[in-house]
Amino acid sequence: MMSLWLVLSAAVSLVGALWPLPQNLTQGNTALRLSGNFDITISPGISEPPQDLYDAISRTRSHLFTDDLGRLVVGRGAGDVSTFETAAYLSSLTLSLEPGSSVLSITAEAQKPLEERDEAYTLTVPSNGSVASITATSTLGLLRGLTTFEQLWYEYDGTIYAVNTPIQIEDVPAYPYRGLMLDTARNYFPVSDILRTLDTMSLVKINEFNWHISDSQSFPLQIPGYMELSEYGAYSPQMIYSPNDVEYIVSYAGARGIDVMVEVDTPGHTSIIGESHPEFIACYLARPWASYAGEPPAGQLRFANATVANWSAELFTAVAQMFPSSMVSTGGDEIQTYCYDMDEETQYDLNSTGRTFNEALTDYVRGTHGALAAAGKTPAVWEEMVLDYNLSLSSDTLVLVWISSDDVKAVVDQGFRVIHAASNYFYLDCGAGEWVGGDPTGNSWCDPFKTWQYAYTFDPLANLTSDQYSQIMGGQQLLWTEQSGPDNLDPIIWPRAAASAEVFWSGAGGNVTAALPRLHDVSFRMQQRGVRSIPLQPLWCALRPYECDLDW
Amino acid sequence: MMSLWLVLSAAVSLVGALWPLPQNLTQGNTALRLSGNFDITISPGISEPPQDLYDAISRTRSHLFTDDLGRLVVGRGAGDVSTFETAAYLSSLTLSLEPGSSVLSITAEAQKPLEERDEAYTLTVPSNGSVASITATSTLGLLRGLTTFEQLWYEYDGTIYAVNTPIQIEDVPAYPYRGLMLDTARNYFPVSDILRTLDTMSLVKINEFNWHISDSQSFPLQIPGYMELSEYGAYSPQMIYSPNDVEYIVSYAGARGIDVMVEVDTPGHTSIIGESHPEFIACYLARPWASYAGEPPAGQLRFANATVANWSAELFTAVAQMFPSSMVSTGGDEIQTYCYDMDEETQYDLNSTGRTFNEALTDYVRGTHGALAAAGKTPAVWEEMVLDYNLSLSSDTLVLVWISSDDVKAVVDQGFRVIHAASNYFYLDCGAGEWVGGDPTGNSWCDPFKTWQYAYTFDPLANLTSDQYSQIMGGQQLLWTEQSGPDNLDPIIWPRAAASAEVFWSGAGGNVTAALPRLHDVSFRMQQRGVRSIPLQPLWCALRPYECDLDW
Repeated sequence: MMSLWLVLSAAVSLVGALWPLPQNLTQGNTALRLSGNFDITISPGISEPPQDLYDAISRTRSHLFTDDLGRLVVGRGAGDVSTFETAAYLSSLTLSLEPGSSVLSITAEAQKPLEERDEAYTLTVPSNGSVASITATSTLGLLRGLTTFEQLWYEYDGTIYAVNTPIQIEDVPAYPYRGLMLDTARNYFPVSDILRTLDTMSLVKINEFNWHISDSQSFPLQIPGYMELSEYGAYSPQMIYSPNDVEYIVSYAGARGIDVMVEVDTPGHTSIIGESHPEFIACYLARPWASYAGEPPAGQLRFANATVANWSAELFTAVAQMFPSSMVSTGGDEIQTYCYDMDEETQYDLNSTGRTFNEALTDYVRGTHGALAAAGKTPAVWEEMVLDYNLSLSSDTLVLVWISSDDVKAVVDQGFRVIHAASNYFYLDCGAGEWVGGDPTGNSWCDPFKTWQYAYTFDPLANLTSDQYSQIMGGQQLLWTEQSGPDNLDPIIWPRAAASAEVFWSGAGGNVTAALPRLHDVSFRMQQRGVRSIPLQPLWCALRPYECDLDW
Repeated sequence: MMSLWLVLSAAVSLVGALWPLPQNLTQGNTALRLSGNFDITISPGISEPPQDLYDAISRTRSHLFTDDLGRLVVGRGAGDVSTFETAAYLSSLTLSLEPGSSVLSITAEAQKPLEERDEAYTLTVPSNGSVASITATSTLGLLRGLTTFEQLWYEYDGTIYAVNTPIQIEDVPAYPYRGLMLDTARNYFPVSDILRTLDTMSLVKINEFNWHISDSQSFPLQIPGYMELSEYGAYSPQMIYSPNDVEYIVSYAGARGIDVMVEVDTPGHTSIIGESHPEFIACYLARPWASYAGEPPAGQLRFANATVANWSAELFTAVAQMFPSSMVSTGGDEIQTYCYDMDEETQYDLNSTGRTFNEALTDYVRGTHGALAAAGKTPAVWEEMVLDYNLSLSSDTLVLVWISSDDVKAVVDQGFRVIHAASNYFYLDCGAGEWVGGDPTGNSWCDPFKTWQYAYTFDPLANLTSDQYSQIMGGQQLLWTEQSGPDNLDPIIWPRAAASAEVFWSGAGGNVTAALPRLHDVSFRMQQRGVRSIPLQPLWCALRPYECDLDW
């Protein structure tokens, strides 16, 4: 019995540690060394390769020689020497596009609408030192192949080597939307933190940065024509995202195969707009805030007011111009009706136009969505917009389900496309206690902490009929930052957010027991790249796959 | 009503932000500037001041001019300019000892037995520019006064200023043991991380570093004469604490008023000793581990064996020589009896000597404690040693209560002195999910997350009679590091561990509502010193004391 286990153990330790797991993977157990002269070449068939493909190649080459990741076994690779010291050297990797593929930049491919995204690739790594290859039908596919290729390599005593060649991978994501949401309004994050996060997202093939850029507490986005919002609403003149910052972030993301879907949350979560436009805001700083708002400070846009509605629509026109993505989110969560019930101006606007609350809200959202449509954008909203207010939005609207994964079915039944963002699986901030003051024993509303294991068990298609599956676009983990800032950004996200990255790339049904050694591997690789990804277990366990499992 | 609130608000914003709160504090609302030539002098009455007092002064001077902490109000101090621009300059602070005080180093004072520690001080800061002063009866008291003095100052546009002079503080800690426990065995922490943690502990007057240095997963401590333990038991030759490292850490701690109480956990939590002494370990790597151990890998010292018992006692003699503290912990938690029941060698040892399990365990612990006593040390143990095994230990033994604060009374009733370390209040690692593999929906055994607020409500004297109060030595928050490493050390500890620091310095009964602005302040000061202390709230709230309270 023990000897069988030893055999299995040894076999297991040679399995590659790719994350997310490719759809089809065939691998051997032959070692291969990376030549010191290793080169990545673009096939002559790709005429005029885009600059961001050259840049991606350059980053991959750098990662190959600087990751310096020791393999996660006792000895960190010392035991591999006898295996690799006679191995062949790989001197070259060639990138090719299938004949007839159009040649766009990675950025342009990443920013395509969800239904047009093409991330498939084929990766072949022979054992004998002949050329490795990645083929795809888009530059974005080539990028995904490069990312996979980077994860094959370990370092020991100056030798860069793989243990599991020959390798043949045919890969394609299960879902076109694999995101991460970051709130930069409750607390501010310097651009450098966002860039590092984008790099890490790219490492696990997350392709959407859902940027919750403003909220009731601060408005850091500088919008041409609306500069007063950040001038009065940013935490400080240094804690802003200028148009240049946005352009740089969007471009940095695009080059890494990541689209940026910005959210300017409306009409709720807008108190801070009262700093520059107090007349736009109902129940502005009203007390007790808990009667008027989900969290302090109170204040929501007077959506029933024609001036506010027009201003909001024009604001989204301006926002749309800053972000090349095909999608922009207008938010729409947690509208507090009591605030509007108590607001004389809103009641006057409703009465004078003879509209109900829902009718006026419909008009408002149609205004902002109309502006987005005119700018060529698809709108996204939080689930309440379609479940609570029956707004009859355009059928192409994307709906983020956050309150509970139990709500997905209702949204899908209405015919909308869904982005999974359920707090009960995917909220990275849950479980760290109550942040509102004056509550000695309070815990977080969305307790408990959402573990990577639990997120990993998520089934995107639960409760749906098979003809509804195509309405699921993918999903994301989310970080609301009431208790986060630059000092705990990495540890709270990584490696946990890799869980949904694999669910939505590889598809549901993965097994946490089998996944853990691979997740350790990618987490340690993140650390090698300067990301403060946390340990999931004692190092003793990380170096001994399965030995810390409950049933070992 | 609103105007009253505004008045209160303004008054509140001038309250100093000291953490922990001094026992007696009188302050005004006059601003004072720090002179660019500010100097700290030692009274001529202190003959031959120790070097670590000079060093402490030097650190304080550096902090005063480099903390650069903007005050936590909207504008971060811009509104203070009109207040401080006509303020007097403070040019000097004098340190004095009361006549007749002996002059020892800070380090020597910090390392004294609990009952001999003297940390009291008086701090006077006038408003008019005359000399400020700290007086005490020990150099350790002077250090505590310097630490308080540092927290008075803010920076705006190049000016260093205080807002709440004149200040008169008479201060003394409520408890002599105010600790922080760090486990460096589940995951390793470089010396630099420990030093940074010691600096931060000192900032909130934590005076005891309880170093859980070894466990079943690794043995990083190099002990002269026992080098095989770390040679075979450290995670790598680099992941060790050499005698020089220990000496440096102990000395660094001492200079900051911190004693180091090391724990070498025995006889449980010792599997890794099997790497060098397999014959010493019962149920070594036995499977299923869950039957033999609280966590993998299984293995416990064969305490009933005379060779093992003698070896353990001598080991503690060697450990005692490395650590100048008056206290050393021999551990003693989570002994798994099934492991010994199944261990033929242990059963043989028990039978051949005619001893029961408890008798043999008593002999073993008396051996290690005897070695410590011979080395002049007071032993500390986890609670099971006195509650579960009735070992009749020496009455001076310190008992750390970790399983539940409900167990304190039983330990005190036995006459032992207690160090509070209750998992239900003070475990910093709780609530982050199950780390054992193969458990998709598992949460942490000590859920939920222990918030700073909850730790802050802890009553050290609960359920005790007044004549038992003197048996409470203090307490600590604790970090077990199954899911922690250098990458999340700071965020998981800070500012939460400041909660117990205040409970055990200032005494119980503090109010979380009143404490929060001060805790923000010390957390932001930690950040200014390069510590990754996390935000407790959105910055909007941190800049507006009380406005994010539940009842605002």
